[in-house]
Amino acid sequence: MSKIAVIITDYFEDSEYTEPVDAFTTAGHETINVGLEAGAVVKGKKKNTPVTIDKAVTDVSQKDFDALLIPGGFSPDNLRAFDAPVAFVKEFMASGKPVFSICHGPQLLITADVLRGRKVTGYKSIIQDIKNAGADFQDAEVVVDRNLVSSRQPGDLPAFIRESMKLLP
Amino acid sequence: MSKIAVIITDYFEDSEYTEPVDAFTTAGHETINVGLEAGAVVKGKKKNTPVTIDKAVTDVSQKDFDALLIPGGFSPDNLRAFDAPVAFVKEFMASGKPVFSICHGPQLLITADVLRGRKVTGYKSIIQDIKNAGADFQDAEVVVDRNLVSSRQPGDLPAFIRESMKLLP
Repeated sequence: MSKIAVIITDYFEDSEYTEPVDAFTTAGHETINVGLEAGAVVKGKKKNTPVTIDKAVTDVSQKDFDALLIPGGFSPDNLRAFDAPVAFVKEFMASGKPVFSICHGPQLLITADVLRGRKVTGYKSIIQDIKNAGADFQDAEVVVDRNLVSSRQPGDLPAFIRESMKLLP
Repeated sequence: MSKIAVIITDYFEDSEYTEPVDAFTTAGHETINVGLEAGAVVKGKKKNTPVTIDKAVTDVSQKDFDALLIPGGFSPDNLRAFDAPVAFVKEFMASGKPVFSICHGPQLLITADVLRGRKVTGYKSIIQDIKNAGADFQDAEVVVDRNLVSSRQPGDLPAFIRESMKLLP
């Protein structure tokens, strides 16, 4: 089964963490919470869902994982203020392994400058940022472009989870 | 004295509202809180500072004001998910009246597509978005480009307030 890194920090969109993680683990996959500090407990934006960080992003490599999940909310913007999460996402995209991005997830991909020419979707507020980053923005519940699966918002979670599961090795 | 619109919603950076507003009102200017719904009370991100919205953005025009303040935090991203705040910021920039943007403030300016060729600064996490929007990003405590005054973060507030005050009619 697959080892899936979940890159996350405070103010994540609760359901965009809990629902994919529940689906992946129920299917027998393993998820590892990767954040700024191992052992820290980060909280969701709406429901204060607590998530314990398993590994600091400075202590891991894409080689340790089979796929990457980027939940939305304000977590991606908080993470991209630091160099290490941006470098981690950049090496993950370069590896060609599956990357699952929902809502504000593309903010990390934009700062990593890995969206040029890629088909992608994301939350309404960041549409202009996605277009300015050279991506081909699509207004759809889920967009699959080779290794990259993306969705717009919590309402798209069923389609997002369905298409992400198909790419897990 | 000047009438200054403050465009704001939940999760604003507390000090980026309170400090400029205190400085402007102490100098005899008037500030009007413009948001999504008149009468609503929005809250700051760190200290839950309550701010009552005086006017709905759908009920005002740039003609009603002499200048615009855009506090940061996650307020600008929350606002740009709606068309009316983006249109208001766009007409304000087109008017040539002073616009004061700090931290995540440029997110509203990016979605309004008014930064091409402009010198501007903003919070570290959105540097790539500012560059992708065609702006000339500058890493300085305050940047003044004609009517547009911008700063990076709360630590820049003294310089931000000083340069903003100089442009008030």
